[in-house]
Amino acid sequence: MITANQLRKFTEQIFIAIGCSEADARLATDVLVSADLRGVDSHGVARLPGYVRLYDVGRLNPQPHIRVVHETPSTAVVDGDRGLGLVVGPWAMQVAIDKARTAGTGWVAVRNSNHFGIAGYHALLAADHDMIGQAMTHAAPLVAPTFALEKMLGTNPIAVAIPAATEPTFLADFASTAVAYGKLEILQRKGQDIPLGWAQDASGQPTTDANAIRNGGALLPLGTDREHGSHKGYGLGAVVDIFSGVLSGANYGPWVPPFATAGFMQANEGVGEGTGHFFGAMRIDAFRPASEFKIHMDTWIQRFRQAQAVEGKRVLIPGDPEREMEAERLSNGIPLLDPVIQSLTELGDRFGVFFSPA
Amino acid sequence: MITANQLRKFTEQIFIAIGCSEADARLATDVLVSADLRGVDSHGVARLPGYVRLYDVGRLNPQPHIRVVHETPSTAVVDGDRGLGLVVGPWAMQVAIDKARTAGTGWVAVRNSNHFGIAGYHALLAADHDMIGQAMTHAAPLVAPTFALEKMLGTNPIAVAIPAATEPTFLADFASTAVAYGKLEILQRKGQDIPLGWAQDASGQPTTDANAIRNGGALLPLGTDREHGSHKGYGLGAVVDIFSGVLSGANYGPWVPPFATAGFMQANEGVGEGTGHFFGAMRIDAFRPASEFKIHMDTWIQRFRQAQAVEGKRVLIPGDPEREMEAERLSNGIPLLDPVIQSLTELGDRFGVFFSPA
Repeated sequence: MITANQLRKFTEQIFIAIGCSEADARLATDVLVSADLRGVDSHGVARLPGYVRLYDVGRLNPQPHIRVVHETPSTAVVDGDRGLGLVVGPWAMQVAIDKARTAGTGWVAVRNSNHFGIAGYHALLAADHDMIGQAMTHAAPLVAPTFALEKMLGTNPIAVAIPAATEPTFLADFASTAVAYGKLEILQRKGQDIPLGWAQDASGQPTTDANAIRNGGALLPLGTDREHGSHKGYGLGAVVDIFSGVLSGANYGPWVPPFATAGFMQANEGVGEGTGHFFGAMRIDAFRPASEFKIHMDTWIQRFRQAQAVEGKRVLIPGDPEREMEAERLSNGIPLLDPVIQSLTELGDRFGVFFSPA
Repeated sequence: MITANQLRKFTEQIFIAIGCSEADARLATDVLVSADLRGVDSHGVARLPGYVRLYDVGRLNPQPHIRVVHETPSTAVVDGDRGLGLVVGPWAMQVAIDKARTAGTGWVAVRNSNHFGIAGYHALLAADHDMIGQAMTHAAPLVAPTFALEKMLGTNPIAVAIPAATEPTFLADFASTAVAYGKLEILQRKGQDIPLGWAQDASGQPTTDANAIRNGGALLPLGTDREHGSHKGYGLGAVVDIFSGVLSGANYGPWVPPFATAGFMQANEGVGEGTGHFFGAMRIDAFRPASEFKIHMDTWIQRFRQAQAVEGKRVLIPGDPEREMEAERLSNGIPLLDPVIQSLTELGDRFGVFFSPA
């Protein structure tokens, strides 16, 4: 168990140690720790060693000159200059927010970035300004389109944040796959089987083998198979890939460079620059008065919470589970798995930063 | 079998008979017949008697004064004045396209409309202008959110159209459910079972009963169950509902008025005006030169078509099946089911329009 503040201090010092500015280190840390707080452990500080490996192999610029390379009143393309996606993401979202102030909406495609953490963090930045926020990113290929054997798309998540009045912000934040890769990795580490419907083996057959993806298999799109709509999950992941990659001038599809997992470091860049993202901000009062909208959002949320539920269950609003986890972990601390503690301790040793979970 | 032109002539005359202008009748017909041509039979002329029933009960204004009620450089809210969604949709998409010309993007929320046909028709309108088109709509509640027994959302489809250079336009167009309602209705009519994973019964259990939805059951979100990501399909359907309903000032969630199916005509309007939609147009060269983008889209499409496939299958690009069906039906005609022929013949008798399928 470690407190969010302890984790922040450590993580900031590591980012500073590889050459980030204090402000960038603070921001990147905030994105990572917010994932740990919300229970998305796969996207939190467990990835810190990965970012450092990106730096080690020269794929990460700790002092990027992030800039707008093209714009119109409601759009921009941002070049991340190989900076941390954790820093490039909020920078680009701010451009979208600024555009929305004057044009009503702002839409920003990003290239030359890398892993930006949880999509929901970025989408939420707009909600603070009475805007609807959207964030999406592609990622290295793990997913086979419907009828394919080959991994062609990443888990390509989408987040949409919509503010309410007295109710908490609606936050849908999900991978366009049947399951997030992090959930599969948990079962992999435990040596357990995965449910049918998450992955296929090397011949395209359903599998319960958590290691199938390392052995020629692939994750399945949301919908699992054609009969249950996998072509829809594939279509959704494809749209995320095209908005993040083709629109921005980044790579796309099977050319998206891998995140820095061990033994899988070769960036195979062929059709664009680095990894891409796509952000949107829509000013609510560009459509109707924000106060009126937010009262209706309260009604929406309350009505859905009150929906008649399956016995023993309740109907959740997108964002509820993560918000409840955050409250719990702010009070009681963040649990870290032993391998994560070990890799962070090693990272601390290397840079002379003391790591001390309780 | 009937040719597209025969079907157009008949349908136009019916719309004119209920008071539509010739231009509106032609447009509404084009939207419906395009669904028949593309093989989305549930959204084509089979629905013509439904639109007429909407007219009969006073929920459809054949001569609407469609207008922009609020706008910014990149946004607008359109009031459809209870016009045909088939006419209001293209009108609103044109506003989005015009906004995109000057502001880079255009986003239009619509209220006071009704069923707008296939989402893909509207999204494609932008692709003709070197823009990416988006169209979504909510619909009457048929879908239970994850863990709910109650029907709270419609099948809430999303369409995204993305132009390429020499390859055909990428068109993802899908309901946010495990299956489109039309597909379930086909098995219902044949008296056959449905696959597990499409629907639940009145107690929230998986069912193969095609009639379950009429007996207290519900359609399931894309993902089918929690373990396979149904909360993602629910989140997606919720976003479509909020963009179409809450942002526009239409109804939302369980208050969305039903389409005119027999015995199910009561509009239960409580929180807004009519049915809503949401449209977007993004000028490609607001991000990068359109010619460059479209060449990369060709590469994207060709690379995905060439992906290694499951034996005996090929990897499709979103839009392929509908495009292939359209080519086939333009050559060989459109098959109509007997009940559709009968209902159109009755409609023709009522208005003195001769209906003559071969």
